[in-house]
Amino acid sequence: MIKFSRLAFAASIALPVPLTAQVVAEQTAQLRDAALGDSLALVIVDAPTTEIGPRKAGSEAEARARDWAVAKLKALGFANVRIDGFDIANWERGAASAEVIAPFPQSLTITALGNSGATPANGLQAEVIGFDSLAALQAADPASVKGKILFVTHRMTPAQDGSPYRTVGDIRRLGPSIASGLGAAAILIRSIGTDSHRTPHTGWQDWKNGARPIPAAALANPDADQLERMLKRGQPVTIALKVSAKMAGRRPSGNVIAEIPGRDPMAGIVLVGGHLDSWDLGTGAIDDAAGLAITTAAAKRIMDAGQPLRTIRVVWFGSEENGVLGGNDYRDRHKGEKHQLLAESDFGADRVWRFQTAIADAALPRMKPLAEALAPLGIVQGGRNGDASGSDISVIQQEGMPVIALGQDGTRYFDIHHTADDTLDKIDPAQLRQNVAAWTALLSIAANDPVDYGPVAGKK
Amino acid sequence: MIKFSRLAFAASIALPVPLTAQVVAEQTAQLRDAALGDSLALVIVDAPTTEIGPRKAGSEAEARARDWAVAKLKALGFANVRIDGFDIANWERGAASAEVIAPFPQSLTITALGNSGATPANGLQAEVIGFDSLAALQAADPASVKGKILFVTHRMTPAQDGSPYRTVGDIRRLGPSIASGLGAAAILIRSIGTDSHRTPHTGWQDWKNGARPIPAAALANPDADQLERMLKRGQPVTIALKVSAKMAGRRPSGNVIAEIPGRDPMAGIVLVGGHLDSWDLGTGAIDDAAGLAITTAAAKRIMDAGQPLRTIRVVWFGSEENGVLGGNDYRDRHKGEKHQLLAESDFGADRVWRFQTAIADAALPRMKPLAEALAPLGIVQGGRNGDASGSDISVIQQEGMPVIALGQDGTRYFDIHHTADDTLDKIDPAQLRQNVAAWTALLSIAANDPVDYGPVAGKK
Repeated sequence: MIKFSRLAFAASIALPVPLTAQVVAEQTAQLRDAALGDSLALVIVDAPTTEIGPRKAGSEAEARARDWAVAKLKALGFANVRIDGFDIANWERGAASAEVIAPFPQSLTITALGNSGATPANGLQAEVIGFDSLAALQAADPASVKGKILFVTHRMTPAQDGSPYRTVGDIRRLGPSIASGLGAAAILIRSIGTDSHRTPHTGWQDWKNGARPIPAAALANPDADQLERMLKRGQPVTIALKVSAKMAGRRPSGNVIAEIPGRDPMAGIVLVGGHLDSWDLGTGAIDDAAGLAITTAAAKRIMDAGQPLRTIRVVWFGSEENGVLGGNDYRDRHKGEKHQLLAESDFGADRVWRFQTAIADAALPRMKPLAEALAPLGIVQGGRNGDASGSDISVIQQEGMPVIALGQDGTRYFDIHHTADDTLDKIDPAQLRQNVAAWTALLSIAANDPVDYGPVAGKK
Repeated sequence: MIKFSRLAFAASIALPVPLTAQVVAEQTAQLRDAALGDSLALVIVDAPTTEIGPRKAGSEAEARARDWAVAKLKALGFANVRIDGFDIANWERGAASAEVIAPFPQSLTITALGNSGATPANGLQAEVIGFDSLAALQAADPASVKGKILFVTHRMTPAQDGSPYRTVGDIRRLGPSIASGLGAAAILIRSIGTDSHRTPHTGWQDWKNGARPIPAAALANPDADQLERMLKRGQPVTIALKVSAKMAGRRPSGNVIAEIPGRDPMAGIVLVGGHLDSWDLGTGAIDDAAGLAITTAAAKRIMDAGQPLRTIRVVWFGSEENGVLGGNDYRDRHKGEKHQLLAESDFGADRVWRFQTAIADAALPRMKPLAEALAPLGIVQGGRNGDASGSDISVIQQEGMPVIALGQDGTRYFDIHHTADDTLDKIDPAQLRQNVAAWTALLSIAANDPVDYGPVAGKK
């Protein structure tokens, strides 16, 4: 049973409600409900996935995507559409193959991890040593693993909030550098994913502390199962590995920026967006054409409803997948500008189920109208959380800018994330529309609220 | 409300029940229930999928699988373990790739269909013409499709009894010959499958009536979606296709046969089994190591329970995937032998939900004890049906031999069938055990029933 205290009730009715806030709430509800019938987001997500396909950072396809983006955002009526260009170090995937030589000859399905080193041109052949955790790898005796192919497996279960990716993902982020430091010939990891398909999960990793690059690849989950079973048989397992990945010069990349200018240029910028680049294995539908589509369709609805108080800046970041280079460029280039809010959609296209905030204490009461506007969509207010909802804004956020994260249901996200299976069929149009409605409500409030959301204490 | 007529009730209690039948029923129930705790089937399905992996007809891996099979069946205590060897025409897959050249440059994921022809070594480039059905392809004007790449799409929905495969599968079985007859440069079909993964479905097709081999490949379903969307944009779509498949000599294959000799050599043979070869993309877990495991684990339980009346012959067919060559060899080689029953498990490892019969009219009342033994497993008696439950016995069945088909739930079978995703993780151990229990019940009855099940009228 829930008890309402008399005091709480009295306080609630005693709050002064400015007329403007009430008008905003009514407008927000109308815009939100209309957005449930959105068709623009599906058009936006379809175009880059169908007409461009994979858009790897620094690729000619990413450049075509920028051209398409500029034309599309202009056609939608956005102002100040431009590209913040920058150069990136270009990593090429090349080819990757793994053949069990003994005792059970057969091919395993792998994909190179981003920034992987290469084998010699004719490959390398070595015994496999298995580890069931990153901690076990870290504790390995260098003498026993030198020159070997190290295999790190794990268990990753689906979770609505996607949180297992933080810890399990460290196998990809840190494992290769640790293996390199141990003198390993190469590292194979179980895909950082929750599916059971022969579609391995790639993903970026940096060589930490000057670690020498070695071949680093992910096995598809069924292949990791297979290698585990082979190792459990007890005989030495030898693999012939070929990885032809390489760093190859510098390439142009960039962030595409578009705006809805606010009525008050001093009221600060509300930044929303996603990332335009994708991994090269799939067509980048859930990661992250969906994010572009959701935030831009919502912004377009606010634009059509009349000029907002604050400027809404839509950013389609480039080169997110290879080290959040677009986010870093934005942070450095726009650090002097007053951002009232950062919000990114980069966790697929399944429904928003909660929102979390990283805003100034004084602004917290301003979340009540947002909570009320989102509740009819089945969205609850979560705790305060410093986490951003996207990598790009997480690096910008470090400048103390406030963030609101609309948390999507990630239960099936890591089935698909960074695989060839990231294709348009994975988008559920009804859930995509629910996202647009949630973002429309967020923008309706945040772009018209005259109160400062930041700066956020505890962030430099 | 269900009404029981007095007559039916009286008839039911008036039936003479021979003591032997009652003993068989009790034994059957005990054996069936014990089989629900089976562990042997999982061991048998694991071995070839893990230790051998893909076992393409005629390959060195299939030969290793036969060696393993002989050793395993002998170790289990089967008698007369031997190989019926035969040679097959060897089709090599080679490599296959498809690149959209214009208007939306990107790669599509394809796999060659079995028996595909090749492109020139440096590929071919042609416009794509789309068809939404086999009928539309058949109706095409040769003048408009000559030299083009023909693309046939379709919709295939999952079905418990797998029946859509019969009609939709004709796109694979007949489409290439039709396209060849039309003068097409090549044919691409939407995968004959119900999944949405980048794992295209291969499968055999014969060149009908001397059709000239052309390159024939299947697009993964998300890639077929992609190509459909491109064609709907209205601009000509050009693809660069490379397929290096070829026929290359003859290779040894064979059926592995093992027996539990019956007490009465004149009582006829009960043949059960599955096929040992698999397609080369996956490790052949559901297609068809599962069938070997289920039928052999059940036969082993009957063996351990005491010598049956009839001989149980376990056949692990070779070269099923490339035209049912093992089934054909068996039919020709063993046509003079008295077979009391044929039953094959070749539809995955999900639970049996019904059984169907193709037996002599006079033997139909003998199905009552079987129906009673299977009912506690959730299995119902379906109609009389000439269909076999496996391709191998379907060609043998044409000799008029009786068949009982234990029908498995095929709802997810065509998600995986003939893809790289046919791996051990797709086997649900609990459903595998239910299969063993069903087959144990079937064998307990069929191998001890003194009545003839055949010959089946209407079959030559």
